[in-house]
Amino acid sequence: MTGITNVTVLGTGVLGSQIAYQAAYHGFSVVAYDIDDAALDKAKVQFGKLVKVYTQQVEGAADGKAEAALERITLSSNLKEAVQAADLVIEAVPENLDIKRDTYTKIGGFAPAHTIFATNSSTLLPSDFMDSTGRPEKFLALHFANQIWVRNTAEVMGTSKTDPAVYRTVVDFASAIGMVPIELKKEQPGYVLNSLLVPFLDAAGLLLVDGIADPEMIDKTWRIATGAPLGPCQIYDIIGLTTPYNIASQGNEDQRRLAAFLKENYIDKGKLGISTGEGLYKYPKS
Amino acid sequence: MTGITNVTVLGTGVLGSQIAYQAAYHGFSVVAYDIDDAALDKAKVQFGKLVKVYTQQVEGAADGKAEAALERITLSSNLKEAVQAADLVIEAVPENLDIKRDTYTKIGGFAPAHTIFATNSSTLLPSDFMDSTGRPEKFLALHFANQIWVRNTAEVMGTSKTDPAVYRTVVDFASAIGMVPIELKKEQPGYVLNSLLVPFLDAAGLLLVDGIADPEMIDKTWRIATGAPLGPCQIYDIIGLTTPYNIASQGNEDQRRLAAFLKENYIDKGKLGISTGEGLYKYPKS
Repeated sequence: MTGITNVTVLGTGVLGSQIAYQAAYHGFSVVAYDIDDAALDKAKVQFGKLVKVYTQQVEGAADGKAEAALERITLSSNLKEAVQAADLVIEAVPENLDIKRDTYTKIGGFAPAHTIFATNSSTLLPSDFMDSTGRPEKFLALHFANQIWVRNTAEVMGTSKTDPAVYRTVVDFASAIGMVPIELKKEQPGYVLNSLLVPFLDAAGLLLVDGIADPEMIDKTWRIATGAPLGPCQIYDIIGLTTPYNIASQGNEDQRRLAAFLKENYIDKGKLGISTGEGLYKYPKS
Repeated sequence: MTGITNVTVLGTGVLGSQIAYQAAYHGFSVVAYDIDDAALDKAKVQFGKLVKVYTQQVEGAADGKAEAALERITLSSNLKEAVQAADLVIEAVPENLDIKRDTYTKIGGFAPAHTIFATNSSTLLPSDFMDSTGRPEKFLALHFANQIWVRNTAEVMGTSKTDPAVYRTVVDFASAIGMVPIELKKEQPGYVLNSLLVPFLDAAGLLLVDGIADPEMIDKTWRIATGAPLGPCQIYDIIGLTTPYNIASQGNEDQRRLAAFLKENYIDKGKLGISTGEGLYKYPKS
């Protein structure tokens, strides 16, 4: 038992809508909040798509379970109402420190004292805005990956002020919605996954920048040596080149060389990865 | 057709003996050279072990093919005789620049003019000693991984002076002995595999050093996110911690922190990985 029944997800973008749907799918009562009716109309479309995706891809979802999840989601564009019955608020608003701080200041006043706040921020550290929450001991990061139903890690990361009991509750909640909780003992920019993935993709990218080897050769080497199904260049194309480009643009000299290479040879030509039919590889139209 | 019939392997250490055996297994006539009879006696033991390993693990090797390979291997401790009929010499002598240069100066005089020289060096660049060969256009790197019969990559890396036709011949030879050739277009320290693996393992190691997460959490994250069968901490234990330690010791500040951590917590305690029953994980005795 986690003591959590009512979950509010703030922000219904790509990941926010997946989080809300995943929690509802696993039986939680969910409020999905976004700033206005236009955003909520988009959210409805997203939820409808997720019903189809889960029905096709998630075991046991085909017998009406995917549709039933929708009945447990309430849409709201009223922040106060959205959080007033929440046991857990998962925040997935834009990655902007001012927006985050403003959101936490508001919900710190609106939500009951027992409510736990969790941020899904990928690039900011929870300690950057914990004081805005008014309840830093009940605040931590709970970080999901895109395509939550397949890549079902939930990285749980507290600050120095997070109550260990709150941390455990959120770990248990993550398990309860079908995620594999990844427990971080301290704050770490990039959590575990991006701390591994970014240097790995950088290394592969630099082999391309320096003209050492082709994507095929790089990927083949990795697959044979480690038994992995995918090499780094295949992973680039799945993620899409824009995110690695954005991260590399803000990095050290080597990373900026990589960013320039990705921009000139791929991004400026609309080759963003699998989603556009071409990235480091070409994908035949099916 | 590669035009290669007779292969001489210089050095019968762990990898040298595997290379010699693999070439013989695939029908080539092989001379295995080492410095004295004591070294060659050890080589015989190695070849005997490889017969058993191939018989058990390599498809088609059980019907006498593994034993038959031994008949195609001639042992020699006479360097001049060892190379005088070679079409290809694969050098796997110790990773010491003076030893490499001395070896190439000698075989440059002993071997026929058409003989191709390939170094299996992991840590030195072929251009560091190409001039000692007296035939830089017929010289390049051909780099194998341990357990050649499973991890069957052969990284082919020329210098600026390597004749492209020689490069193609060696790529074809690698295929002919059952390897997947990885074609590098330029020199790169660490080739492709270690250029990917070292930063990846460093990143995982630093998460341990900084107390961010346990090996289990790190590996679980990687496996779920990428579909790989092994996380980085499992790979550490398979490789053994000594090699990553040696590489990290010579690196930047973060890498030296990692080296000190590996030494203090693992290497000094005899926890070197799977081979010793404990590394980042404990392995129950079976």
